[in-house]
Amino acid sequence: MDERMRRQLSFALEIDKEKNVFRQTHLSGHGRRENDAEHAWHMAIMAYLLKEYANEKVDIAKVMLMCLIHDIVEIDAGDTYAYDEEGLKTQKAREDAAKERIFSLLPQDQKEEFISLFDEFEECRSAEAKFAHAMDNLQPLLLNDSNEGSDWKEHGVSSRTVYGRQRMTRLGSEELFMVTDQIIQNNIKKGNLPE
Amino acid sequence: MDERMRRQLSFALEIDKEKNVFRQTHLSGHGRRENDAEHAWHMAIMAYLLKEYANEKVDIAKVMLMCLIHDIVEIDAGDTYAYDEEGLKTQKAREDAAKERIFSLLPQDQKEEFISLFDEFEECRSAEAKFAHAMDNLQPLLLNDSNEGSDWKEHGVSSRTVYGRQRMTRLGSEELFMVTDQIIQNNIKKGNLPE
Repeated sequence: MDERMRRQLSFALEIDKEKNVFRQTHLSGHGRRENDAEHAWHMAIMAYLLKEYANEKVDIAKVMLMCLIHDIVEIDAGDTYAYDEEGLKTQKAREDAAKERIFSLLPQDQKEEFISLFDEFEECRSAEAKFAHAMDNLQPLLLNDSNEGSDWKEHGVSSRTVYGRQRMTRLGSEELFMVTDQIIQNNIKKGNLPE
Repeated sequence: MDERMRRQLSFALEIDKEKNVFRQTHLSGHGRRENDAEHAWHMAIMAYLLKEYANEKVDIAKVMLMCLIHDIVEIDAGDTYAYDEEGLKTQKAREDAAKERIFSLLPQDQKEEFISLFDEFEECRSAEAKFAHAMDNLQPLLLNDSNEGSDWKEHGVSSRTVYGRQRMTRLGSEELFMVTDQIIQNNIKKGNLPE
């Protein structure tokens, strides 16, 4: 096999490790913690399913791919919980080093393409990145809502903090932000989230 | 929220269960068994990464979506191991019932779209379906190869049986079939697969 394909298959095998990076979110039915690969799979399908609600017209293949690869850096950098203030301070440096190592396994043109897509997601300026971020927020919200807010309770998170993060959803989809708001309000009423 | 969105979110939550359907394949590094959601995520990224090797030009968004949803029916029907002859006899009936139940959660237009995509994958006639099938074969082959063929050994599978399944890869990609052949031959030489 030639060098190009060898590099591609080496990257394909390396990313298998993302299945061992566990998040704070639990699966529905009060299941175990979810891992990054499962989260990304779920986001990508939801992006396709809900694309009619994007604020701007999106290239859905690009959104799906963005969803699929956006957590690959966590193979080295680990998952940083959305409400972990200490972890968030060092997140960028850890993820930059990981990005360089992991995407360098690819042929140069694909390295550049994947890093560009990853950076576009992080910068959250394009229509696709904004919609992908909406999925990154909505997917765990749905799971946590189905579990009566157990992840919020475990971490003592308040509705103010949840709104802080979920405001990103509005950039991608006003309609999905309205649903997000309903879900948060409903959980406040049920006592799952302190105000 | 309106009925359409309620249905979409209900489907989004339902498919979370795919993360609990475990396959016979083990993760690299002699890890635990892989689940369907992880497998689908891995296939979708590999499809994008390796699209230059498809025999025919493919609509890559369609291939990725096909990869992402192709195992959703296993939420009800369970995983049928590629080399389980008894299970394979009842697989179609179990999967048809599951397909009807799960995709009926969606609004009618999306139910039809997803079922059509699922059937297209199963029938394996379009360029996209053939390439998605190549990924469905290559992804576990890579993992199993990285684990010195431990999944084959566990199930007493022979190289003849593996070739029987992997011949589908050739329909999607001659070049990836050449690599598949190299990997199988290499495992025969190492004693991981009896001829």
